[in-house]
Amino acid sequence: MSCFPHPPDYLIQGVLAGNRRVLARTITLFESRNPDHLRLAAEVLQGLAPHGGNALRLGITGVPGVGKSTLIEGMGLHLVERGHRVAVLAVDPSSRLSRGSIMGDKTRMEELSRRTEAFVRPSPSGGTLGGVAARTREAMVACEAAGFDVILVETVGVGQSETAVKGMVDFFLLLMLAGAGDELQGIKRGIMELADVVAITKADGENREPAERARKAYENALGLFRLDRHVPVVTTSALDGEGLEYLLGSLFELYDADRASGTLFERRKKQQVAWFWELVEEGLMDRFRHAPMVASLMEETVAGVEKGDLFPGHAARNLLDRFAGQKR
Amino acid sequence: MSCFPHPPDYLIQGVLAGNRRVLARTITLFESRNPDHLRLAAEVLQGLAPHGGNALRLGITGVPGVGKSTLIEGMGLHLVERGHRVAVLAVDPSSRLSRGSIMGDKTRMEELSRRTEAFVRPSPSGGTLGGVAARTREAMVACEAAGFDVILVETVGVGQSETAVKGMVDFFLLLMLAGAGDELQGIKRGIMELADVVAITKADGENREPAERARKAYENALGLFRLDRHVPVVTTSALDGEGLEYLLGSLFELYDADRASGTLFERRKKQQVAWFWELVEEGLMDRFRHAPMVASLMEETVAGVEKGDLFPGHAARNLLDRFAGQKR
Repeated sequence: MSCFPHPPDYLIQGVLAGNRRVLARTITLFESRNPDHLRLAAEVLQGLAPHGGNALRLGITGVPGVGKSTLIEGMGLHLVERGHRVAVLAVDPSSRLSRGSIMGDKTRMEELSRRTEAFVRPSPSGGTLGGVAARTREAMVACEAAGFDVILVETVGVGQSETAVKGMVDFFLLLMLAGAGDELQGIKRGIMELADVVAITKADGENREPAERARKAYENALGLFRLDRHVPVVTTSALDGEGLEYLLGSLFELYDADRASGTLFERRKKQQVAWFWELVEEGLMDRFRHAPMVASLMEETVAGVEKGDLFPGHAARNLLDRFAGQKR
Repeated sequence: MSCFPHPPDYLIQGVLAGNRRVLARTITLFESRNPDHLRLAAEVLQGLAPHGGNALRLGITGVPGVGKSTLIEGMGLHLVERGHRVAVLAVDPSSRLSRGSIMGDKTRMEELSRRTEAFVRPSPSGGTLGGVAARTREAMVACEAAGFDVILVETVGVGQSETAVKGMVDFFLLLMLAGAGDELQGIKRGIMELADVVAITKADGENREPAERARKAYENALGLFRLDRHVPVVTTSALDGEGLEYLLGSLFELYDADRASGTLFERRKKQQVAWFWELVEEGLMDRFRHAPMVASLMEETVAGVEKGDLFPGHAARNLLDRFAGQKR
């Protein structure tokens, strides 16, 4: 673990000046599990927070093989060429095991990484999904304070990560592959309902026609399922850049409309409060599981509930009373 | 609050004998909030639990106006005529306010209620969704112990109740109305993904053709969205009983297949354990919110998080430390 000899002001000022090296160090500080860094991290975060919030925050998901990194790089380059500053972050709790299944390969997004208007950062590794997501939220605040005005948060198509990412972004883009009728194979239940925009990827060459058919099929299906909002379905190709303009245009339209109506800030407020409660819940559950009076009985209790010998209500009350030290 | 002069054995034996009056008293005991009844309720429940589990548990939802009660009564009568014993329960947290928006009207399901092979019980009123759901689970155990082999759990189409009910039933039936193109108006996000079977209601007379069109549209859409399981879509009419045979046949097919494969019992085990954790979480959050050290700061903290003055991570840590009495 590297040490942080810098005073908080050095990091705060460096980030605010848009210095990418200081930004990277700051995010490393946020990710540090060294207890000595906690207070410094908190101070820096508190200093940056008032300067965050001025970015379109987009979550992006899709199954492996859908061409996520390629499309994200294409979107990033497209945005940079139009004067935006783009940060790419990631939430991938599986990187704990695989050490970086998302963007672990340094050669990915190489072209975007070289641009001074872009900042690409792989998923923090280690810890729970909640921890990984929290670190990414903090990184997002730092990137926004550093002047990045589009934040792309990549995630894997496994369900829980998407819910976590949905809680930190303004919109969610679901990438789908037109294919042998099993376009959705691997997409977990519920993810479709998180999407604000759907893009069919690799819509080039021979794939152009199947992609257009898939686009129509999904648009029809979404029309039946999602009456809360019209969900645009677009075809894209990272190869020839087709559809990127339209896709990004649709997203900025949503962003501008929600900003103008105030919906965006209302949603962000709710996200902050929901995040607070999640952290409280996570912290409480963690303390509960590790309380000696509880931990010693846990295995036996769960086994009894599973077998049907213990009624969940009584088992829960018993452990809660032990936790509170009442030992009835 | 009525008192319970009966010893637990009287209630247990009465329920096991299939006595509907004792069953009703027992459920009233479970619903009682009188602290004196808690221990008796726990004892009775523990006595009944080993005799539960021998029923097809079906959750049923749909927006108001879809014809839920009428269809449930039709299903109930159909089942009773084929030798089944049917209990109808409900989870409706809104009945706290409206005092029974589900089955509050005593004239509903009148014909089914008169049958000795049926037992109809409105939603417990009062308390949180978690509490209402817990009481209904307990009532389900009692009904199963009393020999009812089909349990229909009615709920309202508002989202959270469905998730709670999904956690206590084997299958979920979603009722939909074919109509002016807005069939799903009012159905909340996520509910479609809970359904194991979808029924288009009121498919009679002039409505027969639109219902058949809706059936096909939903079947196509579900084919794109739900690859984990084939979700049958059927048309039904409570008026002329059309489709009921097929609907119930589909459900018993699922039930038999999942019993034979062991999936059913695996799922029920997971449901029990998940329920236990939900109760733990609910209990912890409740204790947290009401802890004086926490409660006194809560309003201010949430307001600070919402305004962006407080970072959720720091706010949560601060309150958790107070809760643990560390006051750092």
